[in-house]
Amino acid sequence: VPTAIDYSSVLQEDEFHRLADTTIHDLQEKFEEYGDSVQVDGFDIDYGNEVLTLKLGDLGTYVLNKQTPNRQLWLSSPVSGPFRFDWDRNAQAWVYRRTKAHLLKLLESEMEELCGEPISLS
Amino acid sequence: VPTAIDYSSVLQEDEFHRLADTTIHDLQEKFEEYGDSVQVDGFDIDYGNEVLTLKLGDLGTYVLNKQTPNRQLWLSSPVSGPFRFDWDRNAQAWVYRRTKAHLLKLLESEMEELCGEPISLS
Repeated sequence: VPTAIDYSSVLQEDEFHRLADTTIHDLQEKFEEYGDSVQVDGFDIDYGNEVLTLKLGDLGTYVLNKQTPNRQLWLSSPVSGPFRFDWDRNAQAWVYRRTKAHLLKLLESEMEELCGEPISLS
Repeated sequence: VPTAIDYSSVLQEDEFHRLADTTIHDLQEKFEEYGDSVQVDGFDIDYGNEVLTLKLGDLGTYVLNKQTPNRQLWLSSPVSGPFRFDWDRNAQAWVYRRTKAHLLKLLESEMEELCGEPISLS
């Protein structure tokens, strides 16, 4: 039986928005710079309605969005599938509970593999 | 061991785009109508960069996007999590392989539960 978690006690909503928005906007900027340095047909980064979309043409599409009620960032990765990240106060990072994967490290690893160039996101 | 599926043999890319775009645009229209008939604070529907976002305020956010390389529609549901739907030629519907769930029926069920009003999507 999964343990019920009172997510609202973990982060206040305004703190969640501040942390999540900072992460999303940092990623948007870094992906835009990255797009100038790699040769990937169809590379396109877009932020709208609180959803960050990174298209890599034939390589697939990443979607990162806020899930405010449970204070999570959800990622759809064409490589590794779906993830739900919670803010980890100790690590000061978005962490996937099940595997302890860090959002930014996961993206660094996958982007380098997909696009052939390293990227520093953390 | 999962069976490797040659997705590209299932749907040609142009057929995939036609089917997926039709589904997404139909959903957008129906959700817009639905938004006028329900009382949900923060109801907001948006389509941009091939990603459909349905915000239900405190109830959470739905994201539906195309994953073109594997000819799938990916859904993030705040109720039931992530799904990947393939086009089923026999059913003429987007179907989640693992549970045989249909995209439109799943959304009908969840929306009625969340918003308190039935919606017809199929």
